[in-house]
Amino acid sequence: MANSHPEQRFLAQARDLIEQALEANLPGESDAGVLAPDLIAAMRYAVLGGGKRLRPQLVCATAASLDPDWQYSGALHRVIPAACALEFMHAYSLIHDDLPAMDNDDLRHGRPSCHKAYGEATAILAGDALQALAFEVLADAQALPPDMQLAMLRTLGRACGWRGMVGGQALDMAASGKVLTQAQLARLHAGKTGALLGAAVELGGLGVGVGADRMTSLTSLGAKLGMAFQIVDDLLDVTATTDKLGKTAGADAANGKNTYPALLGIDGTRARLQELQQNIREDLAQLALAESPLAALAAYIIERDY
Amino acid sequence: MANSHPEQRFLAQARDLIEQALEANLPGESDAGVLAPDLIAAMRYAVLGGGKRLRPQLVCATAASLDPDWQYSGALHRVIPAACALEFMHAYSLIHDDLPAMDNDDLRHGRPSCHKAYGEATAILAGDALQALAFEVLADAQALPPDMQLAMLRTLGRACGWRGMVGGQALDMAASGKVLTQAQLARLHAGKTGALLGAAVELGGLGVGVGADRMTSLTSLGAKLGMAFQIVDDLLDVTATTDKLGKTAGADAANGKNTYPALLGIDGTRARLQELQQNIREDLAQLALAESPLAALAAYIIERDY
Repeated sequence: MANSHPEQRFLAQARDLIEQALEANLPGESDAGVLAPDLIAAMRYAVLGGGKRLRPQLVCATAASLDPDWQYSGALHRVIPAACALEFMHAYSLIHDDLPAMDNDDLRHGRPSCHKAYGEATAILAGDALQALAFEVLADAQALPPDMQLAMLRTLGRACGWRGMVGGQALDMAASGKVLTQAQLARLHAGKTGALLGAAVELGGLGVGVGADRMTSLTSLGAKLGMAFQIVDDLLDVTATTDKLGKTAGADAANGKNTYPALLGIDGTRARLQELQQNIREDLAQLALAESPLAALAAYIIERDY
Repeated sequence: MANSHPEQRFLAQARDLIEQALEANLPGESDAGVLAPDLIAAMRYAVLGGGKRLRPQLVCATAASLDPDWQYSGALHRVIPAACALEFMHAYSLIHDDLPAMDNDDLRHGRPSCHKAYGEATAILAGDALQALAFEVLADAQALPPDMQLAMLRTLGRACGWRGMVGGQALDMAASGKVLTQAQLARLHAGKTGALLGAAVELGGLGVGVGADRMTSLTSLGAKLGMAFQIVDDLLDVTATTDKLGKTAGADAANGKNTYPALLGIDGTRARLQELQQNIREDLAQLALAESPLAALAAYIIERDY
């Protein structure tokens, strides 16, 4: 992303803050209370080894965009704990998804996946500890009003549990090698990737205290962004190289995964994406956010090619 | 446990409430939002398939004991969400500990362990979802004052993460086949089992709003109870049968685990336990809890033989 526009400068600034906060909230190997240095190393490896920081940026972009003075907004600092929590949650889910018993993937962010680098037991535990850390960071964010903090914790809990991310991953495992309908595939992805991306938009809204009406619109926009993200991901798995992706290209087809290109063909998938992009633009316009960091990030999600 | 004494009647009543609350807070296969029925079945199997409910009983017994009118106390209902959260956390940790990449145990509570019954992928995910559910139940407990609820969430997060339970399990894996000193073994168990048992006592204290001084005494008592529990567990692994334990007897020695009997011998371990029991009695007396549900539960922890 070029940094010439204020929206893009904002996103770059948010990204720097996010990187600093992730580092600050991770344990270091010399921290008091460290029982097993390998566990800490594996947690740091999984979080600090790259990644687009899309979920935390989405939290920050949503919060700031809802503030009319977003270029000078203090909203960013208020949502950084929630942003970190989502990234820790995302990092844990990638560790567990890559395990031999799950997608069995050796490559992540262009490097050996966590269990290849640290062994399976340490990888399972690093994922477990990152999930706990996600909740802990948010519960520790004592600068927030307690009611806002609890609402954020509830959103996080719902998004990453049996109704959300973990439920979607379980459905994905169960459906491998079977052919799903488009509605079933949409439900799978609404859980597996949509829940955290939707939670990102909601957490951003909670951080600036939006009312129930706008929250409903935000939740709906978040769901569309989640689906658009997944469709692009599916397309890239077919069209991009392993080198560009930083993870194994073509892994979906090799694992018999249900994807949009497998269901709709590449052209049909691209048409679905264009339709979704149009809906997202309309939602943003209705929220009076057509020119905002959130709109810039939405455009990136849809137009990215890594 | 006989039910003739008021303390024991209280513990039996708490146990009933806990069972009801666990069932009420678990998803059912027909709940709205269920994506993968197998995931839900595995979560229910792991939680509802037995277990002593020691951690949630410890939360309830601590809270009630600190209330002079404990036989008619409302404190019990206030700490039930925290009690459930700890049991979900404990259940998830057992699922992950039993995995092939970890302790590789086929038996738990006298039945096939979760991955033997549901497969490895579903077991990993059921553990992940139970951890999320633990935080969610506590974040959803809206009858509590927000500050108390957040303090409980912080205690839970700290106890089950890299400093606590997961850190201890990682150290246990790393130390298998090596000989630890008694101090190292104490640190391992302070994390692996002590953190949740200690958190149980703290959560009970938080639920009745004890002051900082009493909380320090409670935390110290919780640590001793955790160590006593582990020493008894180690002794039972050597002296009891698989049938009695409901898990594989002798598994510690077979896995090259560091245990108190391996380090101190059986007689030395029993002597250490007696010393600890004396310390726990003194702590309880100083807290004016010598005759309380907490004292009854402490006695059970030390004298239990399943």
